[in-house]
Amino acid sequence: MINYPNKKNDKQSIKDVPGRNGGIAVRSKGMGFEEMINRSNEFYLLNDIAIIHKRPTPIRVVKVNVQKDLFEKRHRITEAYYESRSTTDYNGIYRGRYIDFEAKQTKYNTFNVGSNLHDHQLNHLERVRSQGGIAFLLVDFLKFDRTYLLEIEQISRFLEREKGKSQIPLEYFEENGFLIERKYNPQLDYLKVVETLI
Amino acid sequence: MINYPNKKNDKQSIKDVPGRNGGIAVRSKGMGFEEMINRSNEFYLLNDIAIIHKRPTPIRVVKVNVQKDLFEKRHRITEAYYESRSTTDYNGIYRGRYIDFEAKQTKYNTFNVGSNLHDHQLNHLERVRSQGGIAFLLVDFLKFDRTYLLEIEQISRFLEREKGKSQIPLEYFEENGFLIERKYNPQLDYLKVVETLI
Repeated sequence: MINYPNKKNDKQSIKDVPGRNGGIAVRSKGMGFEEMINRSNEFYLLNDIAIIHKRPTPIRVVKVNVQKDLFEKRHRITEAYYESRSTTDYNGIYRGRYIDFEAKQTKYNTFNVGSNLHDHQLNHLERVRSQGGIAFLLVDFLKFDRTYLLEIEQISRFLEREKGKSQIPLEYFEENGFLIERKYNPQLDYLKVVETLI
Repeated sequence: MINYPNKKNDKQSIKDVPGRNGGIAVRSKGMGFEEMINRSNEFYLLNDIAIIHKRPTPIRVVKVNVQKDLFEKRHRITEAYYESRSTTDYNGIYRGRYIDFEAKQTKYNTFNVGSNLHDHQLNHLERVRSQGGIAFLLVDFLKFDRTYLLEIEQISRFLEREKGKSQIPLEYFEENGFLIERKYNPQLDYLKVVETLI
């Protein structure tokens, strides 16, 4: 096996990208939570536990400038727009199983599915489940400093039961979800919960 | 289940994006081949056969302009650059199994792994395989109008055997890979081959 790009490079690619913040601001998501997930995934990857990556933010490119140099061509994008995701933020493989999830943060003691997830994202997670994959939501309750894993079937069950209501209260997460352990490394050990779902 | 975004929209998002061509030009990949794969994936999705999506092209955003309107904020990216992929183009789930692959085109009767795939992409596919996933390459030989599926273990075997040589001849694909059937729908039925690998 050839060397996997080392940690140093990975960190650089996170830090040296001012635009990422732009992208995150659009989705109004806290960087701390996303970084915790990314670092946990890095830990899983480096320890051969799982391969879970964040899908790049979809961007619709409108204009590209090609700058010709003596040695190379440089493509500079001069007009582009963020697009909404048709799938979810994260997917990958753990113990042979396909994993797919979305990560969201809330400032309140409820989580608003309607304003945080598109219908086609919920639909995507439902499809994954019916294909035999493990599909869930990681929701970080900022005020309580607690992160829950809630399987897609529990979300669908809530939405069916409470027709038209899309505010899922923290209690529902406590009763039907799983609290994620915070550790030194991995910081957010969500696969420990996934383990129990397999 | 809520309606999945319909075909019409998907087609729009492919056609209305001039910048995509920019992206593809950078990776010197033919649009026809990519479109065939995307449409096959659409067919698999709409018929509940598999969920396989193309990962968005990673773009490093440097400058964003926020335009405030009466009704909304618009984020316009004014400086950004294409980044190289740390993983592969496609991944998803088929019959409960994790699928991961890269698609490439060659004009010659050989396929140059070295110039078409980064070490960390090969490494990624190797990792997927060792985690129990199905990892492969789809290579389209433009001149012969034939597409082959070659599993990552066959690629690694070739590279190990032929130290330093990264040009895999068509014959190697014929002997160790699988020819993909061309059909009306799905146009490139690669899952028919994957089926035999499970």
